[in-house]
Amino acid sequence: MLQTRIIKPADNAYAYPLLIKRLLMSGQRYERSREIVYRDRLRFDYRELNRRVARLAHVLTAAGVKAGDTVAVMDWDSHRYLECMFAIPMIGAVVHTINVRLSPEQILYTMNHAEDRFVLVNSDFAPLYQAIAGQLTTVEKTLLLTDDDGANCELPDCVGEYERLLAAAPSEYDFPDFDEDSVATTFYTTGTTGDPKGVYFTHRQLVLHTLAAAVTVGCRENPTLMSSGDVYMPITPMFHVHAWGLPYVATMMGLKQVYPGRYDPELLIELWRREQVTFSHCVPTIVQMLLNAKAAQGVDFKGWKITIGGSALTRGLYEAARGCGMQLIAAYGMSETCPLISGAHLNDELLQASDDEQVTYRLKAGVPVVLVDAAIQAPDGSFLPADGSSQGELVLRAPWLTQGYAGNPQKSEELWAGGWLHTGDVATLDEMGNIDIRDRIKDVIKTGGEWISSLSLEGLISRHDAVRDVAVVGVSDERWGERPFALLVLCPGQALDARGLQAFLEPAVEQGHINKWAIPRQIAVVEDIPKTSVGKLDKKRIRVDIARWLEEGHDAISSV
Amino acid sequence: MLQTRIIKPADNAYAYPLLIKRLLMSGQRYERSREIVYRDRLRFDYRELNRRVARLAHVLTAAGVKAGDTVAVMDWDSHRYLECMFAIPMIGAVVHTINVRLSPEQILYTMNHAEDRFVLVNSDFAPLYQAIAGQLTTVEKTLLLTDDDGANCELPDCVGEYERLLAAAPSEYDFPDFDEDSVATTFYTTGTTGDPKGVYFTHRQLVLHTLAAAVTVGCRENPTLMSSGDVYMPITPMFHVHAWGLPYVATMMGLKQVYPGRYDPELLIELWRREQVTFSHCVPTIVQMLLNAKAAQGVDFKGWKITIGGSALTRGLYEAARGCGMQLIAAYGMSETCPLISGAHLNDELLQASDDEQVTYRLKAGVPVVLVDAAIQAPDGSFLPADGSSQGELVLRAPWLTQGYAGNPQKSEELWAGGWLHTGDVATLDEMGNIDIRDRIKDVIKTGGEWISSLSLEGLISRHDAVRDVAVVGVSDERWGERPFALLVLCPGQALDARGLQAFLEPAVEQGHINKWAIPRQIAVVEDIPKTSVGKLDKKRIRVDIARWLEEGHDAISSV
Repeated sequence: MLQTRIIKPADNAYAYPLLIKRLLMSGQRYERSREIVYRDRLRFDYRELNRRVARLAHVLTAAGVKAGDTVAVMDWDSHRYLECMFAIPMIGAVVHTINVRLSPEQILYTMNHAEDRFVLVNSDFAPLYQAIAGQLTTVEKTLLLTDDDGANCELPDCVGEYERLLAAAPSEYDFPDFDEDSVATTFYTTGTTGDPKGVYFTHRQLVLHTLAAAVTVGCRENPTLMSSGDVYMPITPMFHVHAWGLPYVATMMGLKQVYPGRYDPELLIELWRREQVTFSHCVPTIVQMLLNAKAAQGVDFKGWKITIGGSALTRGLYEAARGCGMQLIAAYGMSETCPLISGAHLNDELLQASDDEQVTYRLKAGVPVVLVDAAIQAPDGSFLPADGSSQGELVLRAPWLTQGYAGNPQKSEELWAGGWLHTGDVATLDEMGNIDIRDRIKDVIKTGGEWISSLSLEGLISRHDAVRDVAVVGVSDERWGERPFALLVLCPGQALDARGLQAFLEPAVEQGHINKWAIPRQIAVVEDIPKTSVGKLDKKRIRVDIARWLEEGHDAISSV
Repeated sequence: MLQTRIIKPADNAYAYPLLIKRLLMSGQRYERSREIVYRDRLRFDYRELNRRVARLAHVLTAAGVKAGDTVAVMDWDSHRYLECMFAIPMIGAVVHTINVRLSPEQILYTMNHAEDRFVLVNSDFAPLYQAIAGQLTTVEKTLLLTDDDGANCELPDCVGEYERLLAAAPSEYDFPDFDEDSVATTFYTTGTTGDPKGVYFTHRQLVLHTLAAAVTVGCRENPTLMSSGDVYMPITPMFHVHAWGLPYVATMMGLKQVYPGRYDPELLIELWRREQVTFSHCVPTIVQMLLNAKAAQGVDFKGWKITIGGSALTRGLYEAARGCGMQLIAAYGMSETCPLISGAHLNDELLQASDDEQVTYRLKAGVPVVLVDAAIQAPDGSFLPADGSSQGELVLRAPWLTQGYAGNPQKSEELWAGGWLHTGDVATLDEMGNIDIRDRIKDVIKTGGEWISSLSLEGLISRHDAVRDVAVVGVSDERWGERPFALLVLCPGQALDARGLQAFLEPAVEQGHINKWAIPRQIAVVEDIPKTSVGKLDKKRIRVDIARWLEEGHDAISSV
């Protein structure tokens, strides 16, 4: 280490830790009269948000929650969830955002693994909770969340109902200072193999992530994220990487916020219209669901910016949304990265380019946000050039990456091999700093010595007019090692067989976008493609399904 | 301290210190082809900026500069200064930005006090440097900065000329990681009493200051600071709190930057026009100088946003600038605070208000930027309410305040009494979070038991059509303790005496804005008002001048 002149603020007046409470303070100072809206149930302004967070802190501490405890939340997306994201860390405890789409066994596993001491449970999940309560090893008390009075709902060891408890608590709380490296949040990734793995983030990490996300606004002609006048409605579950951390950003910036509860497309469109929502973020399937909804037909969604993450944004979906007035733009991150790593960005040079080329860049993972270091590595750990064509694993350094997986030193070491976080994504970097994700390492199709990106193939196929949804996986092949297999959902009234797809893809071969081995010789048209609990293609299940179909025979399969 | 769950990243892969090098990396990724412009001498893009910073790092290390050393810069505002603000801290050294407007004795004092080992000297300052060189106790080597070839300039122990040395150095440098609490910059405040006092800032502080300044963009309908499309030209000296830290912000955001060298108003206006500058920042006197310039007459400055700090922005100057198309907006900070603390902000409520009320808020110190804690204290250290009327000393906490004055524990302790940084400013806080600076504690006029804000009085008087510049100080008075005395500079061809000023101020008394004791009974009309080296009213000298005039008699004095 260099002999720099170090001034440690540890124990003097000057110490000023980066704490989540400072983000809450900011929103009220900017826009005290803007509102937090929960469906058609409740709305209140930032002054009241501050009072409610203070009340919740009193409720929790009165119920025995102490600094260092883990407090779990099982709720739909609500103002209550937002309040928990502040109040729980602000008293020094850790908020565990439970993925309610996991199986009861997995939820039970995560709650015991995280050593939850206190749980806030929505009445909709009370039956689920009651079913696992007997096997919970660390939970001592519960608190009921409900949109009605909760009179018919029984939870074991329940201290009361949220709104009633808040109403009875004092509206000011003297939130203490403490070490910025204190853990604030934890949740479990929905890996496709093995038990869920717990990641965790500190106050310092969340404050820096929030600042960097907000800075992104100022650095881009085409903001990936929010700006001052926006009305914010997340459509990424709050249990999923704290809704990508963006409720913290919206609160710091003093934006009006709209929480929709469950993701009924008719309700989302109604809230968008009534509350004049201008900014949302979600996975591609949610946009597809919105566009397909009855309430969306004939509607001009002009002015609705939606940042897309979780899976690749295809050109097909981008154009379909643009046709309805929505402006989609891609961003990239993962549970382990808090999550924001990069977002599509058009620099001065690209703003001079053709619309077609601009769209190409709007679909990319884009340019890293400030403070993020990105590189690509060959399998041997050597670094590859940022030349736009060298493919390798995307590895990262940033101030807000999980330090590891809780209680799992082996997986943690793999994640951080060589001092960089390994994303498991195959990508290229170009000279403008753009990250282009080509595939998951495990989803790359290895055929005849070539690597074919399942993601690129899906992107190409999604541009076929008849195709509504697509997944491509490798199936084993004696001669080539693997061959691509495409699973398709077609638009109503459309038809497509393997020969038709081949004819559609041949021009891409001629233009050099893919090699001829990339054309799937086999496809299957299905009603739905399996997705994970967070809306990603469930390639593990898809591979199992296809293997079975190929073995047993299935009339959905069409071959060339 | 609470028993939170602390995860210290100190010695593992996950450690990722907040270092200035990360800001430089960001600009190139956003806008690699935007330019850094130095007058009509030089222009290059962000790729070249990165190469030049690497070259400078090689030049410095080859000359023997090591981590922990202090490297001083004596230059006009230039691309070179920008490069020093990155390269010097990025090798772990400390950049000392020398205030070239101080007296030679004071410069000598600061250089010995800071223990400068290496100095970069502009050829314009070579005579000054040569005059003090013999008394410098720590400097070992110098480096010549010049706009010509520097052939006729001799500096003792000189390693060579900047551009020639850079041209010969390698264009890549592997900048190391080190502790984020390492000191990066130091400079001396131009206090009105005693020796200059050294303040210092760490990498962590400057990175957080940069992020918070950039975030401010996204949080405001009326950006105080820069946004993505802006062209940036500082008109605050780079030795003055590193040009308010905004070159770091501009670089992180990838903005085109224009450095004007010296502040010749004709040149500044020429650069504004030619380079299409949209954002600047300066003290009020610079705007006055620009408006008075021959080249400004009849020019529409539409699209030029200028943030004003250093002294209060008066309504008179605001309106004069608005009349010429400039949009002025106030911000607040000081050398000890890195400097940004707050900026004028119009929230949704104020955007509904009358133009007159909106202007009132554009002139205020405004709302603290994110992460800043502000409060006001009575003389006994108790906290006063944020009610918009209780006046007290503004005290601050934030992640980027100087820890103290270098080598001056007594002044450091006074600065940080009770764990808050004491600004020496009298202010109010209102319920919307606005800071309104009323005066310097030492400039408040204490008359008949009342405190009169010299600043408010100056603001009122500046609205008189005949007044171009004004300073008000207290002069001692046997009966009242102190009485206000106004020093005026009038617009060409205008006249004003004490009676005329009294008549102008009486409506303000009737409307309750000031009490009747606040009307100056004595004024003096002068050619110029003494200013400090950073353009603030030099009230210490003004008081001395007036005391002498009152004693000796002076025909500029007019009394009621």
